[in-house]
Amino acid sequence: MAVGKTKRRKTARTGSGWLLRLRPIGVIRSTIKKRGQAPKQGAEGAPDAWLEVSPFAAQGFDGVRVGDELIVLTWLHQAKRDVLQVHPRSDPSRALTGVFATRSPDRPNPIGLHRVTVREVTTHRLRIGPMEVIDGTPVVDLKPPLACSPDG
Amino acid sequence: MAVGKTKRRKTARTGSGWLLRLRPIGVIRSTIKKRGQAPKQGAEGAPDAWLEVSPFAAQGFDGVRVGDELIVLTWLHQAKRDVLQVHPRSDPSRALTGVFATRSPDRPNPIGLHRVTVREVTTHRLRIGPMEVIDGTPVVDLKPPLACSPDG
Repeated sequence: MAVGKTKRRKTARTGSGWLLRLRPIGVIRSTIKKRGQAPKQGAEGAPDAWLEVSPFAAQGFDGVRVGDELIVLTWLHQAKRDVLQVHPRSDPSRALTGVFATRSPDRPNPIGLHRVTVREVTTHRLRIGPMEVIDGTPVVDLKPPLACSPDG
Repeated sequence: MAVGKTKRRKTARTGSGWLLRLRPIGVIRSTIKKRGQAPKQGAEGAPDAWLEVSPFAAQGFDGVRVGDELIVLTWLHQAKRDVLQVHPRSDPSRALTGVFATRSPDRPNPIGLHRVTVREVTTHRLRIGPMEVIDGTPVVDLKPPLACSPDG
């Protein structure tokens, strides 16, 4: 059951970069269909959504139960990866800031962190919320938070 | 400054999988040299470490300041990606559990989440801690936590 291996390669751009590949463990099914409809954070009015589990990863979900608080890691597939500075919260009156000091989805590696509660568990699907990402967003990991932690 | 694009491809294994590529924005330089020396969590006695910034990503760090609390996302490059169930905390007396209900580094997409404080900022390096990963671990993202959040 080899899922994949970390690839180490030279890249043309840096001469020393690594290319690291993710394999989705699931996908989000949501009523939010477009990026413009999505709230910036889950706590800002996001709906519940379904996480459809990739068959290869199903065993990894054993032990996930209704009521659990979890951190979902998504791949924000519509993000712009060439953005390094943004106006926080898309507010042009705020100074341009490095993306790593913000929660902008536009960033070199557009991984979203979402603190959710598990509402329902069925075969190969979990209902979770709140979840602010759009329908079709790949899910790359799921972890319990360590303690009091909105998204960790 | 196109950093890279999300690749969408068929995979041989699933017929519908996506291959998503990460590009490191930096690397951890630590006194921890081997996985066996690393504490399981940062709060369990981990030292401070240096985050060496990849030149292409340097602008993205503008606005990161000493004293900031940040979530560091790492690529746990020594993790086993074909593991779907583990004994929590490597304790064989605990029942096998799906990796997504645990913080095991062994999991299909070995992304680590680490809540750290920024101790020092120099050109192309940040001193951060506590940081439990080994020397040479790639860093793929950095975000502010949303609120009270050990690792979110």
